[in-house]
Amino acid sequence: MFFKVITTEEALEIVRGFGPVEEVTVPVSDATGLYLSRDIISPEELPGFYRTSVDGYAVKAQDTFGASESLPAFLEISGEALMGDVPDILVSHGKAVKISTGGMLPEGADGVVMLEYCHTLDKNTIEVSRAISPLENVISPDDDIKRGATALRAHSKMRPQDIGLLAGLGIMDIPVFRRPRVAIISTGDEIVPIENKPGPGRVRDINSYTLSAFCREQGAEPLVLGLCRDDFHELKSLMEKGLACADTVWISGGSSVGTRDMTLKVLEFFDHMELLAHGISISPGKPTIIAKVGSRAVFGLPGHTASAMVVAEVFLKEFIRRLSGSNGDDAGLSRSIKALMSRNVESKSGRDDFIRVRIEKESNDQLIAVPVFGKSGLISTLVEAHGMIRIERNSEGVYQGQVVDVMLFNN
Amino acid sequence: MFFKVITTEEALEIVRGFGPVEEVTVPVSDATGLYLSRDIISPEELPGFYRTSVDGYAVKAQDTFGASESLPAFLEISGEALMGDVPDILVSHGKAVKISTGGMLPEGADGVVMLEYCHTLDKNTIEVSRAISPLENVISPDDDIKRGATALRAHSKMRPQDIGLLAGLGIMDIPVFRRPRVAIISTGDEIVPIENKPGPGRVRDINSYTLSAFCREQGAEPLVLGLCRDDFHELKSLMEKGLACADTVWISGGSSVGTRDMTLKVLEFFDHMELLAHGISISPGKPTIIAKVGSRAVFGLPGHTASAMVVAEVFLKEFIRRLSGSNGDDAGLSRSIKALMSRNVESKSGRDDFIRVRIEKESNDQLIAVPVFGKSGLISTLVEAHGMIRIERNSEGVYQGQVVDVMLFNN
Repeated sequence: MFFKVITTEEALEIVRGFGPVEEVTVPVSDATGLYLSRDIISPEELPGFYRTSVDGYAVKAQDTFGASESLPAFLEISGEALMGDVPDILVSHGKAVKISTGGMLPEGADGVVMLEYCHTLDKNTIEVSRAISPLENVISPDDDIKRGATALRAHSKMRPQDIGLLAGLGIMDIPVFRRPRVAIISTGDEIVPIENKPGPGRVRDINSYTLSAFCREQGAEPLVLGLCRDDFHELKSLMEKGLACADTVWISGGSSVGTRDMTLKVLEFFDHMELLAHGISISPGKPTIIAKVGSRAVFGLPGHTASAMVVAEVFLKEFIRRLSGSNGDDAGLSRSIKALMSRNVESKSGRDDFIRVRIEKESNDQLIAVPVFGKSGLISTLVEAHGMIRIERNSEGVYQGQVVDVMLFNN
Repeated sequence: MFFKVITTEEALEIVRGFGPVEEVTVPVSDATGLYLSRDIISPEELPGFYRTSVDGYAVKAQDTFGASESLPAFLEISGEALMGDVPDILVSHGKAVKISTGGMLPEGADGVVMLEYCHTLDKNTIEVSRAISPLENVISPDDDIKRGATALRAHSKMRPQDIGLLAGLGIMDIPVFRRPRVAIISTGDEIVPIENKPGPGRVRDINSYTLSAFCREQGAEPLVLGLCRDDFHELKSLMEKGLACADTVWISGGSSVGTRDMTLKVLEFFDHMELLAHGISISPGKPTIIAKVGSRAVFGLPGHTASAMVVAEVFLKEFIRRLSGSNGDDAGLSRSIKALMSRNVESKSGRDDFIRVRIEKESNDQLIAVPVFGKSGLISTLVEAHGMIRIERNSEGVYQGQVVDVMLFNN
């Protein structure tokens, strides 16, 4: 099998090529964070009636024309519009009806004078010291949304305000893409369950935990298939299980040449398998495999937790977003912040270097990115870091004081 | 009761004064997004043994000194160290043992030569074309973490890598602050449940939905206490219920003077009530009440969904973070991005204006903040926006082309 190392951009192009998982219908109160699968057309107009946006008096705007502090208009109070009721008072010329924010405009009125411009002379009369124009301080029946308008677009992620608009329209259930399911397999003869005390030469199964937590954080559902020894039949059987129960399979532990070769051998066994990447020109994270079995993506991730997490941040976040239903429109709003580098960092050309950084704040509130060095196999380097910067493969490094984009780990 | 309008900074100071809710113990796999309540001290060292970080040959570094392509060192292969096993081969002078990434260094070896610098001459001999120094390509037993060192600090939010470090140390359960519980009351005679078709003058209960979704998004647990008519006894009884079952009570619907007055009257009924704010000098969101009943914060939020959501973004996010256990150390990493204003926006002095904006991308990838205008009661303005900018009360506005910080709504 040929050795196909691809660039960061090529790998991103591959993950962006995967479409969303299937549609389900969920109650609107469970939809936060999920992506709509269809446009939502408004079944009615909102708010549906003429509504005041202030506390004050509903009047005929014309009756206030020319009114000022020195020359106020005098109006007769003909009652009060109660909240939630249809006011049964007609506002005729020279009359005013008391009204509270959100209340329905009584018939005949076409504007509301704010309370602060109304001075009560006696229990029947107010003095209006300011002119209003028609519809001033009034929300019209379809100001918020028109019947038949697109309320929300397919592929948008449901935020609290989007849920609110749906609630306001009386939409109880909506079509969304369900949460993607990710099968996670941790390989390696040296890996033991975390409840065991590892003997010499053995380590606990960190990756099942980091990758599961990562999935949950990204809105996906992790299915931990457990530990797998470096054994062809065991890995093949777990991979079959993963392909059957999940939308994608992530195998961690292919850092050593032997394990990587075995992952490839198992992949070759599957019909309709296409090897998309055998290595990505990044550091850390180079020994990453991307394959497609049928319509499902299989990722072979480095065994080093720190390397696996870099691959997750750079590629699997975007991959999960695509499976979840994003069409990439939200990409401009990704979590990166600008900071100044605290020191020079050299980089080998020919690969993208992802340097973990801590963010520190100077006394003048300037954010500083301080590189966290350490052997790439160490998880402590990731724990100390807030995010990472990318040094592109054509660059020789970054300089002290240079402005860098820090991709933040979720926090 | 006096009318106590406070500034944005004063309101932030108030919400930052609330401490975390109580401690619970959770399995490490359920801890993502929760805040640690105590420092975690490492019970052991990690990885716990000398481990190679590359594929190659374990050797005595001294045997490679001076080796180069033109003058390679010749070493005898004396076996292979199997993954997960304690190698029972001693590396003596002139010998090399094959080893895979992550494997345990055999006794006698003090470094690993990468595979690419080893050329196999015959099945017993390799040619080493590069010198290594002692411990090169080797992770020492306590390189990742030392026994007794602070692995994670109290008040830090658990990310995938933090969970991973705990898993690596065999820590199964950890002390965290539990998710804060928020009681939500939606007041107003005009409000109907969302499954009902509102008659004229009435609207559906949007705020219970937006505020619940907001809580979930922020890691808190919403308890929707339901609709409340503009009635003293009904509100008092719901507020008592909220104070009994939740860590904080949020009452939405106090936009009209009448409802606001009633909320205050009900608050006054409680012993140990302290009114902290009766209005915040912001727009929208001015008619916000903050009170403390015993140790619990009660918020009276504007009834307009858009105004309530601005208050939630600016103050309640930070409030929930504090209840959840943040000590403010993560504040520098808040979700804001820089963009250029698309046009001038004027602002009244004396209050902070929060202007909703859409983010658009120009062909040169420059992000542009485009204000979303519309009457403040409209939820559609929030649906169209990606975030908001703050125009400080001493500023007269922002100018076209000015760089602004956009506080992103979660996406």
